[in-house]
Amino acid sequence: MNWYLQSSDHSDVAVSTRIRLARNLQGLKFNITKKEEREILEKKIKEGLYHIGYGLNYFKLKDMDDITKMSLVEKNLISPEFVLNKNETGSILINDEENICIMIGNEDHIEIQVFNSGLDLENTLNLSVEIDQKIEETLGYAISKKYGYLTACPNNVGTGLRASVMVHLPALSKTKNTKKVLETIHNFGINIRGVYGENTESTGDMYQISNQQTLGMTEQEIIQNLKVIVEKIMKQERQARKILAKDDISLEDLIDRSYGILKYCKKISSEETRNLLSNIKLGTDLGILEELTDLKVQKLYLYTKPANLQKFLGRQYESLERDMKRAEVIKQILEEKD
Amino acid sequence: MNWYLQSSDHSDVAVSTRIRLARNLQGLKFNITKKEEREILEKKIKEGLYHIGYGLNYFKLKDMDDITKMSLVEKNLISPEFVLNKNETGSILINDEENICIMIGNEDHIEIQVFNSGLDLENTLNLSVEIDQKIEETLGYAISKKYGYLTACPNNVGTGLRASVMVHLPALSKTKNTKKVLETIHNFGINIRGVYGENTESTGDMYQISNQQTLGMTEQEIIQNLKVIVEKIMKQERQARKILAKDDISLEDLIDRSYGILKYCKKISSEETRNLLSNIKLGTDLGILEELTDLKVQKLYLYTKPANLQKFLGRQYESLERDMKRAEVIKQILEEKD
Repeated sequence: MNWYLQSSDHSDVAVSTRIRLARNLQGLKFNITKKEEREILEKKIKEGLYHIGYGLNYFKLKDMDDITKMSLVEKNLISPEFVLNKNETGSILINDEENICIMIGNEDHIEIQVFNSGLDLENTLNLSVEIDQKIEETLGYAISKKYGYLTACPNNVGTGLRASVMVHLPALSKTKNTKKVLETIHNFGINIRGVYGENTESTGDMYQISNQQTLGMTEQEIIQNLKVIVEKIMKQERQARKILAKDDISLEDLIDRSYGILKYCKKISSEETRNLLSNIKLGTDLGILEELTDLKVQKLYLYTKPANLQKFLGRQYESLERDMKRAEVIKQILEEKD
Repeated sequence: MNWYLQSSDHSDVAVSTRIRLARNLQGLKFNITKKEEREILEKKIKEGLYHIGYGLNYFKLKDMDDITKMSLVEKNLISPEFVLNKNETGSILINDEENICIMIGNEDHIEIQVFNSGLDLENTLNLSVEIDQKIEETLGYAISKKYGYLTACPNNVGTGLRASVMVHLPALSKTKNTKKVLETIHNFGINIRGVYGENTESTGDMYQISNQQTLGMTEQEIIQNLKVIVEKIMKQERQARKILAKDDISLEDLIDRSYGILKYCKKISSEETRNLLSNIKLGTDLGILEELTDLKVQKLYLYTKPANLQKFLGRQYESLERDMKRAEVIKQILEEKD
């Protein structure tokens, strides 16, 4: 099963983990704009990357239809900026499990990404490093003895590592503590972003927590530092849930009403769905809502996003029609046998 | 079954019919304030009213507990003012079916009330007149040859007749036409009031439509006039429903969401219940909501009102607890076998 449909020990708060390593090839201009440079990059990728294993398949963005590309963005496998800015030139290497997705020709030449459900920075980093080493063996990277890996944007220089954990903070939100907690974290050199990365708003109380610093620390130090912070957030979120659960009936009422609306609505927007699902996930994680399994909650999250909804249904729909189809898909998933 | 749990031909819009005849005994002061006068009234009632049949039972307000009195107010069997102002001195004659309820010692000495489900002014008037004649035979009324029946308030002089029809106007409300329609009606000498009579607001799109004029017209003319107006309102409401039903999915969505919330909430206020039930009744009447029968809708209306909720449960509850109990009773009624 794909990682994004799975749940694990900490997925009540830490929904998923992502490691990204930004790499650039030696002897090639960093921000590629010219056709000849792009052709060199493509040739090198073909020679050095196609055959590293992991069941990776190569796709050019321009050959993919818009819904497929957007469905990958919704799964956080590629960034919205990549599709927006590199649609004509970018490409990806992705496996069927979709836990490995390498973006090629984005800001940096190669961005290795590995994903996992729950909080699992170590294993996710290990696989990334393994892939990274295989690539390095065949293709030489641009490295500075002083700084480490060189990148197009100085923010990534050094390790080129961005470790992110997606966290669900409904109780901190309902107790009006999100801002306070996230501001404190920011002071520890940690970035907080919405679901789709930089400059995006949080919907449904989901936040991406990631390291700011890539230089002057080892990869292990970076993920340990992030892990400590994520564990602090998890603790605070779980404490807030306990406080909420004391005023049992209001929380139950909110959760069960959200379930009732999802179950009976005849049309629903993506945003309302996300907000109701936030309550539903909280209810399932707290054992208040017994009607649902983790798998169903994950399916609801995925297949109600606009592009994945259309992927699921196998065709395109206009906006209003999509809101109706979304209500149908929700009912279908709710009624599925486990 | 009690009239207020029944439905009939026109109850999609005209929910119920009430006839009230205001009468005063001859030789007795109109607005009774003194103990001696009250004793005379009581004695006369005892002699002339106890034995007219119809299974009527006599209760003094001061002997009834508050919840029972409020439950009668909620059923519109007695007015809130009667309980408020005449709690120490007023009394009622009521039968088990509760389609006859005579208020004694209210504004007027005797206020005969007869009730029916749906729109049925003729039969309701006929029964009122029959009861009225029986009382008149044994107790003499205060009558003026010029004006007709004399009453404490000049508004009721003449026939002493107030005919009311309770109408449900959700579609006029949703299409923002309620005000226009009701203002037009007001110009035809018709009163529009909230559910609990004068100076009360409408909740859940329920309105009491009644005659203003009691003088210079026969009883038959009064009810014919009211009937014409109610039929006009019914026509306009039904037209508005057709228009709403054209934008099928929005209406279905609203109705089904209301059902989902009622079914899954863990606590709910009386007012929210009334507003959701307005959608539910509309959905049932239009055949959109097939989960519910008319009887269940009527039960939901009745047993979610604060006092009747507590009557139904057989004990008193504090406000928050009551909101939780209301949610339980709703679930119970929804799950009942027909």
